[in-house]
Amino acid sequence: MLGIREVFPGDSVADLVVNALALGGLRLHVGDIVVIKHKIVSKAEDRRVALDAVRPSATAKKFAARNGQDARVVELALREARRVVRMKHVLITETRHGFVCANSGVDVSNVDGGNTAVLLPLDPDRSAAQIHRRLKKRTGLHVPVIIADSFGRAWREGLCEVAIGAAGMKVIRDYRGKRDAYGYRMHATEEAVADELACVAGLVCGKDTRIPACVIRGYASQGNKGSARGLVRPAEKDLFR
Amino acid sequence: MLGIREVFPGDSVADLVVNALALGGLRLHVGDIVVIKHKIVSKAEDRRVALDAVRPSATAKKFAARNGQDARVVELALREARRVVRMKHVLITETRHGFVCANSGVDVSNVDGGNTAVLLPLDPDRSAAQIHRRLKKRTGLHVPVIIADSFGRAWREGLCEVAIGAAGMKVIRDYRGKRDAYGYRMHATEEAVADELACVAGLVCGKDTRIPACVIRGYASQGNKGSARGLVRPAEKDLFR
Repeated sequence: MLGIREVFPGDSVADLVVNALALGGLRLHVGDIVVIKHKIVSKAEDRRVALDAVRPSATAKKFAARNGQDARVVELALREARRVVRMKHVLITETRHGFVCANSGVDVSNVDGGNTAVLLPLDPDRSAAQIHRRLKKRTGLHVPVIIADSFGRAWREGLCEVAIGAAGMKVIRDYRGKRDAYGYRMHATEEAVADELACVAGLVCGKDTRIPACVIRGYASQGNKGSARGLVRPAEKDLFR
Repeated sequence: MLGIREVFPGDSVADLVVNALALGGLRLHVGDIVVIKHKIVSKAEDRRVALDAVRPSATAKKFAARNGQDARVVELALREARRVVRMKHVLITETRHGFVCANSGVDVSNVDGGNTAVLLPLDPDRSAAQIHRRLKKRTGLHVPVIIADSFGRAWREGLCEVAIGAAGMKVIRDYRGKRDAYGYRMHATEEAVADELACVAGLVCGKDTRIPACVIRGYASQGNKGSARGLVRPAEKDLFR
């Protein structure tokens, strides 16, 4: 979705999306899903930090120097973490939301050329719910909303988009107990469809295009409620604790 | 993509795809990418095992009994593994291909109602390359091919599709060294686009629909070579060894 201008604190992301579509002569339809890269949500919620104002700790400085990273970003990542999962080459943390990702999701790209970092939204599910409600108000439609960020994975190279916030649909499609086309009763199949929808935005939006949102048309989502919290594996099921 | 009939050993998956499209009055276009669920590739390559013929080891029996699973499937999963990553509640293994997944990818759904298990293709990249070459022969087009399976993740609930085989495109889009729209030089951004394309198949194909393949139109892939081996994190970068 082109036509979304630079986002400032206080902006309504829902309005930006609807207006950008209108500029292109488009509008939302019944069944559409809107996927929004988290960075514009963070910008609208003023989750920016000027890097010049960050005083890195000795730990942050040491890790950053050893791994060719910016100590101020490492410092912010440590502050945003509730647990350090791994601090070797890359800083992997568990954020307050429960997400396990690099640098607590703190990122400097697509902000202002390198002077400002952006933190994850405080409560991305709440952000998604707000955008979802505002889209309803603007369009009269029930439009599921997914807020996406790109995370690394434990055993695979490269990043994939995941849903860090969601509203208006079930984030997991549960096939357990259903029969496949051959009559076999499936028992372990829960598909993280919100993450798969987020991945579509990874393909459409890219990283260098100023396309911070996309509309997915034709996917039949289930339910009318849900939150990305449901995609976070609870501690007791974590394979690595 | 509807219209693909039941797949038997020796079938050409590429022919099945082209013929199924033709049945619907469709054909492949320049730029299309074909994503194929691995199960029909495994069926075509006769990677089936009759469960009645499997004699589970004591280890397999014990684990299966404790976790309400089929000891014969556990046995096959152990045989397909080159390393057991975790054997608590769920059997997580590293397959000979290097994939870390549940049950070594051994699966009983969407086969014949529960009597037969299907193993992963022996070399899914080679399978993808064969399908890619055959599509070229049938259509004259360079059509990237991705073979997808659904894997669990370390810290997130639910399965997502991943590319276990690929041919005809780069599997990772490397933004490192590129500048974002604000002039910032990105340094850690490699996107696993083949996995994100696989996720589209997760949304389109589902698990209970007999839709084992889909065509992705409008995504500008990079390069004309690649293999899913490039998505497997090498042991020395594995966060958990």
